[in-house]
Amino acid sequence: MAAKLTSQSDDYPRWYQEVVQRAELAENAPVRGSMIIKPYGYGIWEQMQSVLDGMFKDTGHVNAYFPVLIPESFLKKEAEHVEGFSPELAVVTHAGGKKLEEPYVIRPTSETIIWDTYRNWIQSYRDLPLLINQWANVMRWEMRPRLFLRTTEFLWQEGHTAHATQEESHEETLRMLEVYARFAEDYMAMPVIQGEKSEREKFAGAVKTYSIEAMMGDGKALQAGTSHDLGQNFAKAFDVKYQSAEGKEEYVWATSWGVSTRLVGALVMAHGDDQGLVLPPKLAPIQTVIVPIYRDDDQMVPVLEACSKLEKALKDAGSRTHLDNRDQYRPGYKFNEWELKGVPVRIEVGPRDLEKGEVVLAFRHSGEKKTLPLEAVASEVMNVLDEAQKGLFEKALKKREERTFKVDTYDEFKERVNDGGFFMCHWDGTSATEEKIQQETKATIRNIPFDAPEETGKCMVTGQPSARRVIISKAY
Amino acid sequence: MAAKLTSQSDDYPRWYQEVVQRAELAENAPVRGSMIIKPYGYGIWEQMQSVLDGMFKDTGHVNAYFPVLIPESFLKKEAEHVEGFSPELAVVTHAGGKKLEEPYVIRPTSETIIWDTYRNWIQSYRDLPLLINQWANVMRWEMRPRLFLRTTEFLWQEGHTAHATQEESHEETLRMLEVYARFAEDYMAMPVIQGEKSEREKFAGAVKTYSIEAMMGDGKALQAGTSHDLGQNFAKAFDVKYQSAEGKEEYVWATSWGVSTRLVGALVMAHGDDQGLVLPPKLAPIQTVIVPIYRDDDQMVPVLEACSKLEKALKDAGSRTHLDNRDQYRPGYKFNEWELKGVPVRIEVGPRDLEKGEVVLAFRHSGEKKTLPLEAVASEVMNVLDEAQKGLFEKALKKREERTFKVDTYDEFKERVNDGGFFMCHWDGTSATEEKIQQETKATIRNIPFDAPEETGKCMVTGQPSARRVIISKAY
Repeated sequence: MAAKLTSQSDDYPRWYQEVVQRAELAENAPVRGSMIIKPYGYGIWEQMQSVLDGMFKDTGHVNAYFPVLIPESFLKKEAEHVEGFSPELAVVTHAGGKKLEEPYVIRPTSETIIWDTYRNWIQSYRDLPLLINQWANVMRWEMRPRLFLRTTEFLWQEGHTAHATQEESHEETLRMLEVYARFAEDYMAMPVIQGEKSEREKFAGAVKTYSIEAMMGDGKALQAGTSHDLGQNFAKAFDVKYQSAEGKEEYVWATSWGVSTRLVGALVMAHGDDQGLVLPPKLAPIQTVIVPIYRDDDQMVPVLEACSKLEKALKDAGSRTHLDNRDQYRPGYKFNEWELKGVPVRIEVGPRDLEKGEVVLAFRHSGEKKTLPLEAVASEVMNVLDEAQKGLFEKALKKREERTFKVDTYDEFKERVNDGGFFMCHWDGTSATEEKIQQETKATIRNIPFDAPEETGKCMVTGQPSARRVIISKAY
Repeated sequence: MAAKLTSQSDDYPRWYQEVVQRAELAENAPVRGSMIIKPYGYGIWEQMQSVLDGMFKDTGHVNAYFPVLIPESFLKKEAEHVEGFSPELAVVTHAGGKKLEEPYVIRPTSETIIWDTYRNWIQSYRDLPLLINQWANVMRWEMRPRLFLRTTEFLWQEGHTAHATQEESHEETLRMLEVYARFAEDYMAMPVIQGEKSEREKFAGAVKTYSIEAMMGDGKALQAGTSHDLGQNFAKAFDVKYQSAEGKEEYVWATSWGVSTRLVGALVMAHGDDQGLVLPPKLAPIQTVIVPIYRDDDQMVPVLEACSKLEKALKDAGSRTHLDNRDQYRPGYKFNEWELKGVPVRIEVGPRDLEKGEVVLAFRHSGEKKTLPLEAVASEVMNVLDEAQKGLFEKALKKREERTFKVDTYDEFKERVNDGGFFMCHWDGTSATEEKIQQETKATIRNIPFDAPEETGKCMVTGQPSARRVIISKAY
């Protein structure tokens, strides 16, 4: 193992960069702003995909696939949309050895090509709702790329649904936000706050944007998923109408929602520590790692035999298990490596343990150890992993609570905002004030939480009345 | 239901186009040569992906993700590779509002960017073998696109492995060809012939290319998967060396292998008939469809109740089941629709059947019907589907055998080749003869089958000696 990781308190961004690279999640590509997702990082993404895909299907969605190239003219049909995405587009001007008549852009998101298609798919109320999701790569030319957090190309899913009524599309928007919140909390073990984005921060082309916001290890916020109520904006831009049961022609109502490989970066920063990654068992490519401990060949034989049996028993019990039987490394080296890689539970099997019929379990998230009878490990492993999953969520929730502050004056806010944390403040609801806060402090309004209690107050900047507190924080 | 499908014997290409569109597999996109894969078509691809991904993992491979954009200069590092792919490239010249210093191409395949990366990942023999697969979209600017068969953008998987020795890379090449053959035969129910491609037909940059070739309904061949032994070509082009256990520096040995959404087109043409698709149970998004039959409301209530119970029982038994309880359509209409969509087994539930405690099963691949006791359906369904899977394979194998001919004279070959079929002929092994055959007949050497018996003969064109017969056929 190379030198120790930079500690989080010394240089958090550098810690992040080092963890992502040393834990072999991803690396920079020779293509500006792009990344190569390495097998271990992709393994986490595959776990995420599998869970999310199941959740989408359970809520009635099906998958489809639309082209990666979009005619440039399509983007221009929705005014706010093109304004939002124009600066970030990558453009194909030549193909098949010729200049194209009309340039194509690589999709930054697929509303335009999908709504152009929906025009042909939707005629009657019987065709609605249309509940479609796509797993795809998208491209947004980022000026300051960072592995997983902002890359020119990223992988994501984008749901695009069409509905007969405003009520239905609104319900869908909130349903999918709730799906994202359940995923974040129950699988990523990452507590999130659901809420509405301000007018200034909403998606280009949406009527309303909702987000889940999570707190990272340095107290900054990360937007972990968004769900957009698109109203009839795209239906009007692409002329998508349906005939109602009463025979009336109406524009269709739309939603879109997405999460991306950014979530892998969120996972790193939500739980990681100075030893490296800390993965939640439900998404860890390796949930349990078995490390054999022996001094000589005499000890090795029975220890490795016991380890192999244990590996099989754990796999049969449904746990993603790896036996690290590399002979060229010492146990201490292996401990460090699997800690760096965030494996939730390490199982140490040594000759003295075996004599006693025991093994030692070490939990990554708490550093705690526990001794279990060897023969009980397989039957206990799913409970042990559940325990680790819950423990990790509780720990993250506690950290967030400790760094969430009610602040009532702008002076106090400015003094404290650089220390990180979620600041629950009164805001007058105007874009002007929001912009002032951002320009003066680089913090932004993350969202207006659904569960913020009604509480009469005064905007900390202007003193104007406010009905509830919003989250303000620096963010990724 | 609209008018009848064009029959295969009247116009096979038109039949194909109609089936793909009417069965809602895919449609043409507003982007030249691209397609939109609709939910039913994508559902088939998802089944394929899930099975293949499991097979790759069972043979020790892991997934990763490399950038969709490749610096143009990378392509030029392997001479044959750039020559093969240049005419088909789509080029990004502008991004983020600026002209790029070096253009990027959208990957037509990823050997170059992956081998550029492997240079950093491989130092020692301990880093080998490297067994990586990627699921991705790729782009090849096709002049004559056809849904699934040839589209500018398509979805695929591409395996890229690195090995210490020529023997190992050769073994890997053949292992993955065998995986493809198992997938084609055991899941797609499509018999294939494994063999080596001729020098002229091999992949641009490969030492040897192997393929599986399947026969379509019109007797033409379709290359359903390829596996390439790349030798040290890419290692040399990208300077990828490793230190052997003996301390010697050596170039790494490589393979690559891929299958694509083309397989969905193959599935359509391997089994489809004048009523539409015929899907193998193992890949069908819907394996069993229940169609209730009733004349009036009195009959409807008990019939629908029995159908719902049956649906649940079939799902619990592990079958992907759909209950078609739409009230606006008559049973005959539904029969046609599900036949068009190729659902392997239809279960008809009517009042008279129920009185007798029976249901009727109709098999899509044979048109046969079978009566089963209602209470036996759930416990029998997996056997019934297995039976249909095997029946479909046998049928396809029989069709292929009937249309496989040994032909010994070029005159006979020219006379018969337009009727379709696999022609097993002697060939002198030269590219000149191969080119002559192609120019004069539009047929190509599909591959040199592994299992072709040694048989001394004379090339049907030149009379030169030949040691075994090869498959010659028109192809997609």
